[in-house]
Amino acid sequence: MKIGVIGGGSVGLLFAYYFSFRHEVTVITKRREQAEAIRQNGIRLIADGKEGAAKTEATVKPDAAYDLLFVAVKAHQLESVLPQLENAAPRNIMFLQNGMGHIPELEKWDAGHRVFVGAVEHGAVKENDYTVRHTGKGAVKWSAFSGNSASEALIKELASVHEAFPFMWQEDWYDMLAGKLIVNACINPMTALLRVKNGKLVEEQAYFSYMKLVFEEASRILAVEDPEASWENVLSVCRNTKRNTSSMLADVAAGRKTEADAIMGYLLKRAKEAGESAPHLAFLYDSIKALEKG
Amino acid sequence: MKIGVIGGGSVGLLFAYYFSFRHEVTVITKRREQAEAIRQNGIRLIADGKEGAAKTEATVKPDAAYDLLFVAVKAHQLESVLPQLENAAPRNIMFLQNGMGHIPELEKWDAGHRVFVGAVEHGAVKENDYTVRHTGKGAVKWSAFSGNSASEALIKELASVHEAFPFMWQEDWYDMLAGKLIVNACINPMTALLRVKNGKLVEEQAYFSYMKLVFEEASRILAVEDPEASWENVLSVCRNTKRNTSSMLADVAAGRKTEADAIMGYLLKRAKEAGESAPHLAFLYDSIKALEKG
Repeated sequence: MKIGVIGGGSVGLLFAYYFSFRHEVTVITKRREQAEAIRQNGIRLIADGKEGAAKTEATVKPDAAYDLLFVAVKAHQLESVLPQLENAAPRNIMFLQNGMGHIPELEKWDAGHRVFVGAVEHGAVKENDYTVRHTGKGAVKWSAFSGNSASEALIKELASVHEAFPFMWQEDWYDMLAGKLIVNACINPMTALLRVKNGKLVEEQAYFSYMKLVFEEASRILAVEDPEASWENVLSVCRNTKRNTSSMLADVAAGRKTEADAIMGYLLKRAKEAGESAPHLAFLYDSIKALEKG
Repeated sequence: MKIGVIGGGSVGLLFAYYFSFRHEVTVITKRREQAEAIRQNGIRLIADGKEGAAKTEATVKPDAAYDLLFVAVKAHQLESVLPQLENAAPRNIMFLQNGMGHIPELEKWDAGHRVFVGAVEHGAVKENDYTVRHTGKGAVKWSAFSGNSASEALIKELASVHEAFPFMWQEDWYDMLAGKLIVNACINPMTALLRVKNGKLVEEQAYFSYMKLVFEEASRILAVEDPEASWENVLSVCRNTKRNTSSMLADVAAGRKTEADAIMGYLLKRAKEAGESAPHLAFLYDSIKALEKG
């Protein structure tokens, strides 16, 4: 397949690298220098102390015809990406944003594409414009977004991208994204404020108790069907990624804008609409926003 | 009276200024340059847009004979101050630290002085080595520390220091410090993390709810007798100081060490001794500590 990947961050580079083994990949970056760096060096991936390199194309224009296009920019960058995709011929597009802040935008977006959403459960750190470190091996869960469907052929094709990069088809996009959102709401802001690795949240009794309070707010807001299973999932992600630095902690440490809006901001909006209170999420959201402002 | 004030921070300068009208005051500073600046310029106080100046002595040695000595250093600086006072003749010493982190130290301290503790309910910001801005007019509550007593003469004398600087005698030092500690535990860390003025904590519904959770932990740990009155006190301090920047927010903004140990740290120690959990205080404490480290 011809694969396009919009976004040259850690997730974009990770996708481009693993797809390049069996597919023709083009990375679409914002900065011209990054596209050049990728064209010259290919994409380098570091995992388990080993290094690999993959030749890929790169450009700054998203207008070529792709069989499958991944959108791997942050949620708050979508508003500049979506208009660029509106006049293209219908294609498969998978959105990989964290949280659910992009969902209202996608619901309004009517550009005739087959839209999918994915939840990336890999840990990855961008080392430079063309190098990514694969720090936590997981899976990409994906699903068809409201009203769309996926062909058996696409499901099969994605299942066999690379053994270290499994795709897992999910029937229900809402459950999938809500589950991931709860994990992010529990882990990201706490680790960013406390400046701890993910594992600490289950190792320290006080953090564990506090995270449970955050979980209860988030799962109530999203009307999670099986809260017990969802809480177990949060705990297992903490354990499985215990040595990882959450993306929000990395953003805060680097002085970048975080995904607070897509994660806590979305939950607070839903809570407000329902007239519910969510003091822990509000406190986390505003504290992260205060950190962002310096 | 001969008055000594150890500490040239905002509280020390405030005390030295107001006592200088009817008493002979010496400020004892850590830095020689500050003592010189005070000797040369006197202490300048800015309040309600007006400026006053008071001539005071200043030195770096705390060894002269004072009728009353105020210790206005932060709690974590006490360990270097106490030994300097041990060989002096018995005198009246009033400790003005925030929180209750200094209480275990004072309980062990047996230097033969008459020890008092004070709770400063003024807002003050140090502008430079000899200038202080009196931003919130309140009172100084004071009490005799365990086993000590205050003479009627001293109580009367302190009651008439200056009309803008009232002293209020309290029978029970524990209730007095515990009440102040709860106020500090509720207001200081939240304002420092959210970077908001004190008033916001009662104006924003979510902050209000969150502060109530912090209050419940703190008042339970301190076994407060009348929690309702104590909560009302927290709210009224928020309202009365609504335009004030809390000392912890000021410390965090200036990159200084905060009083987190004396405030949340002390409460967490007490909670641990009692086998109680205090997830909100633990989260606030560790988040402030993470901020301090940058």
